[in-house]
Amino acid sequence: MTTTSTGGPSGAVGQVSVLGLGDMGSAIAKAFVDRGYRTTVWNRTASKSAPLVDAGATAAATAAEAVAASPLVVVCLLDGKAVDEVLGYVDAAVAGKVLVNLTSGSPGQARANERWAGERGAEYLDGKIMGDPPYVGTPRIMFPFSGSRRAFDAHDSTLRELGSVTYHGEDAGLAAVEFMAQVAVGYELLIGYLHTLRLVQAEGVDVVEFTERIAGSVAAYPPLLTQMGKAVKNGYYPPDLGPLSVQAALMDDMIGHRESIGVEAVRMREVKELMDRRIADGHGGQGFSSLFELLARGR
Amino acid sequence: MTTTSTGGPSGAVGQVSVLGLGDMGSAIAKAFVDRGYRTTVWNRTASKSAPLVDAGATAAATAAEAVAASPLVVVCLLDGKAVDEVLGYVDAAVAGKVLVNLTSGSPGQARANERWAGERGAEYLDGKIMGDPPYVGTPRIMFPFSGSRRAFDAHDSTLRELGSVTYHGEDAGLAAVEFMAQVAVGYELLIGYLHTLRLVQAEGVDVVEFTERIAGSVAAYPPLLTQMGKAVKNGYYPPDLGPLSVQAALMDDMIGHRESIGVEAVRMREVKELMDRRIADGHGGQGFSSLFELLARGR
Repeated sequence: MTTTSTGGPSGAVGQVSVLGLGDMGSAIAKAFVDRGYRTTVWNRTASKSAPLVDAGATAAATAAEAVAASPLVVVCLLDGKAVDEVLGYVDAAVAGKVLVNLTSGSPGQARANERWAGERGAEYLDGKIMGDPPYVGTPRIMFPFSGSRRAFDAHDSTLRELGSVTYHGEDAGLAAVEFMAQVAVGYELLIGYLHTLRLVQAEGVDVVEFTERIAGSVAAYPPLLTQMGKAVKNGYYPPDLGPLSVQAALMDDMIGHRESIGVEAVRMREVKELMDRRIADGHGGQGFSSLFELLARGR
Repeated sequence: MTTTSTGGPSGAVGQVSVLGLGDMGSAIAKAFVDRGYRTTVWNRTASKSAPLVDAGATAAATAAEAVAASPLVVVCLLDGKAVDEVLGYVDAAVAGKVLVNLTSGSPGQARANERWAGERGAEYLDGKIMGDPPYVGTPRIMFPFSGSRRAFDAHDSTLRELGSVTYHGEDAGLAAVEFMAQVAVGYELLIGYLHTLRLVQAEGVDVVEFTERIAGSVAAYPPLLTQMGKAVKNGYYPPDLGPLSVQAALMDDMIGHRESIGVEAVRMREVKELMDRRIADGHGGQGFSSLFELLARGR
């Protein structure tokens, strides 16, 4: 390869191949083309490559041909099943390449892909995408990566063309861990919020006005999360939201209210039960963060 | 009453009585004393009033005497049971007063208190407290109020001495609704976060470093909440986090991962089931907010 292979300032052109041209893969390929990379694209349904070819990309006839064209191969497909299938087409052609898989999937799938790549003499990076296609190429979309540190360092500047990039460690599963943990916290907030909109609505309060107020409150939570993360790490649980003995009384009111108006209270009942157990164990002076001690510990 | 009864600029002194001198009641009484209000205090255990008397408050011998001393009577007790008991001592002495109850409790309790006050010729305001005693007197503590609009308008400036004040309507239960809805969303976020820390920990990721990243992400959620609130109100659900058909595949990965490492997945399974039902009903192109349609509707 030439010294231009990792891209760089205008005039120095890198080479990259993109396999999979759905909305996200197309946005990624387009970002590379727009920044002057010699970009080779492939998609099972070949017609998807037409707009990218118009923009300056080269369409490969097969996945293996696309892989052969560049030192850096970015895969962005629908799911792990599609990845397995496309990697099956590529097989030995991946030798000597850096394979970057941005397809959503589990930490286990990422680790399996890494083994597959290693067995064929390729280096593997797993990446996850937190954001939507229109934001590719801006700091508003985040790409956590994990896997080969050497591959990441070599292609760092190219990957940063796509958005905000973080590296989470040599274990290829860690980008998926980051993604799943971040997304889970978001879904917990959002489903809890939707259930509570039913409470708000049942009580005759305008949901948009309530949302404006709760949006302001949520913006104030990050310092509390930071405080709780430290409490969990240290195993020392100061009375963050007040002592559990006081919080537990409040939970009774909340559960009673929700039941009286027919709004679900799954998490409220769980939280109350956890609080009661901590209080019974003599920890009623600790904070909410101490409930962590009672949660399923994982493997 | 004199024109000084609602407080005002320095020199004009208002009159207020505070019943209940726990941490919060004491902080409230102290804030009034510090701002020059003629403050009468009462607590079942009389010794609690000593520091406030030292600061300039007057201690009343009985709850009824404290109520008689001021046009505005603030009650801040442990719970609804304590309120019932203290109001029993006060009874007819409340006639002609504005009774402001800041004790935590349900919308139903607030409405019952309002009836009680009305039957005795008093006006009633219910308030809830979102914040801790050290923040009383600063904008960092929030007091939603509901009940008599006339009483609120008359004592607005006095109540604003305590923190950030909002008025939610003539229905006395609405301050409690606001409090319970706000607190519920917070608990949903926090318990989901704690469960996810188990995932993070099981995968060998530093919980403090993860928390710093998730705190940054949470700070970005308010615009999404605002968007979802509008979607719910309008019954029109654009693909906020992507279409449900795409999100549902992700939920399978998340549930599978959590189960494989022994981390709970209660909400993730619920969300997946709701998504599947929306998709089966032909709404796979809608966003997460459309799950609202399937949630228990309340009364």
